[in-house]
Amino acid sequence: MLKETDCVIGIDLGGTKIGIGVLNVSGTLIDSVRLKTDFKHGPASVEKQIMQAIQDLKNRTKVEIKGIGIGVAGQIDEETGVVRFAPNLPGWHQVTLRKNLEREAEIPVKVVNDVRAITWGEWLYGAGKHYQDLICLFVGTGIGSGIVCQGKMQKGDNNTFGEVGHMTIDFHGPRCTCGNNGCFEAFAGGWGIARQAKELILADNQSGQSILEKAGGYLENVSAKAVIEAYHSGDPLALLILEKVKQALIAGCINLVNAFNPACLILGGGVLDGIPEILSFIDKGIRETALKTATDKLQIKTALLGKNVGIIGSGAVILDVLKNNVG
Amino acid sequence: MLKETDCVIGIDLGGTKIGIGVLNVSGTLIDSVRLKTDFKHGPASVEKQIMQAIQDLKNRTKVEIKGIGIGVAGQIDEETGVVRFAPNLPGWHQVTLRKNLEREAEIPVKVVNDVRAITWGEWLYGAGKHYQDLICLFVGTGIGSGIVCQGKMQKGDNNTFGEVGHMTIDFHGPRCTCGNNGCFEAFAGGWGIARQAKELILADNQSGQSILEKAGGYLENVSAKAVIEAYHSGDPLALLILEKVKQALIAGCINLVNAFNPACLILGGGVLDGIPEILSFIDKGIRETALKTATDKLQIKTALLGKNVGIIGSGAVILDVLKNNVG
Repeated sequence: MLKETDCVIGIDLGGTKIGIGVLNVSGTLIDSVRLKTDFKHGPASVEKQIMQAIQDLKNRTKVEIKGIGIGVAGQIDEETGVVRFAPNLPGWHQVTLRKNLEREAEIPVKVVNDVRAITWGEWLYGAGKHYQDLICLFVGTGIGSGIVCQGKMQKGDNNTFGEVGHMTIDFHGPRCTCGNNGCFEAFAGGWGIARQAKELILADNQSGQSILEKAGGYLENVSAKAVIEAYHSGDPLALLILEKVKQALIAGCINLVNAFNPACLILGGGVLDGIPEILSFIDKGIRETALKTATDKLQIKTALLGKNVGIIGSGAVILDVLKNNVG
Repeated sequence: MLKETDCVIGIDLGGTKIGIGVLNVSGTLIDSVRLKTDFKHGPASVEKQIMQAIQDLKNRTKVEIKGIGIGVAGQIDEETGVVRFAPNLPGWHQVTLRKNLEREAEIPVKVVNDVRAITWGEWLYGAGKHYQDLICLFVGTGIGSGIVCQGKMQKGDNNTFGEVGHMTIDFHGPRCTCGNNGCFEAFAGGWGIARQAKELILADNQSGQSILEKAGGYLENVSAKAVIEAYHSGDPLALLILEKVKQALIAGCINLVNAFNPACLILGGGVLDGIPEILSFIDKGIRETALKTATDKLQIKTALLGKNVGIIGSGAVILDVLKNNVG
């Protein structure tokens, strides 16, 4: 049982930064720190960083810490707390993160995928409060989601529920990193936007000048960020690319709305943050084209919790474990 | 509480036939009848047919009937038991089927979508027994599904969960009946197969001869059935069309496997029954191309319950209601 004065730790572990925060039992973030991830020396040094930061936060806040939730971008085995693979953390394969941290901290630890942690945060304390059926769609370098059905966060049979970035939206389309053709994220994810830009610049160097400039003049440096910057400066090629991205986002969202019939669709992530004006077009596109019964009562919202969502979400995960006494 | 000797009625209500059966509490079908649907005189005469058949079955079996489950091809409001719209039953708009039958039968009635009823049947008594996460995909004239997540049949916020026939698999593709572009069923559903055949025959009448013959010589009569018959007689155009259908089926199944991560994917319906040899290709395509973690433990199966699945499934639905005392 949790007392009113008890707290938990939420951790957002990324390839460049670690966010670590203290949440009270109501999910309010009462203190936090951000560190540069010491990824060069493998999992052990990152775990050491985390333990040190937790100690510092404990000293500062003087609260009782009852558990640790940690969100990691990668494939997680939630039951064992093993990080199977984390693309942004070199050398992280089959890392027994939960076991390692539990041994050091001597309190329960729960490891989850970062997008699922974010979804917990938005569901319990953000844009998705009180919904029983919701989808959090995050459009960053890739596209991921967290999905709640009938009031339960879905995991699937092997913990990969919600890998909607790899739904096919054009089976005649280009090859995705996963080996499939025409995946959602190959069109609308950050890397997919960069892919399209590079192809178009190669085909017509002249019209690609503005995007190239934003990428420092190097084709290999062309990123979604460069395309979005060029778009904001009025570049026609960037406009063309983002028009297609918009169509792909609408198609992908229609899949989600028709297949899952959520009450609430929450949209977030770096790509959408970069072009917030796209949201009203996506909203309109979904309502015009998805099944009417699926959109009748649908709410489409933007993520609310901002840069601390990963910390708050991971904290929410361990709070849920402790409150419901489930691992 | 149900006694061991109690029974329920399961009804499979289609546009041409009504299947009505008696199930015991273990879900075993102990008697059944099939009637031609008297659809010409509206809902009231169909309801009368159903009540008469139930009376006949009661007289024959001498069992105590505790409830009625009824599956209807159409949009159902499960909570109220209203058939919002049933495309194969002319004049069925906002029919208060549950209320009408409960007034006559004086026992609980549950109305569900036909594919969801089928899924209940396959889940509890067929190919999906004991799975907590499964999808039943039915490829008939359209494409529908029933989806179980974490041991719960999913309904979505407005009871349209699983409308996967209207997932986009080619957002550059042709217009679907729903208004979206490139839906799954526009490529792989029966009407989508007929659509493609008609287009190709119009473009090249010569190569379409074999399919046209199977359709009695009339372009407007070209159906998936005609294409499948021509395919079995070795027609090259039919082979070409079904090759594309296969690709579309793989793409659609990859969407399901990657997004829902089921433990079991059950495939059924008239189109697949017509070309059973396609199943091994779909299986192979999914395993080669969907995410590895999503296919690692995935079982792909064919539906098991055959022509009585609609009756058994609808019976399973009302058994679940009575056993769990939920409406």
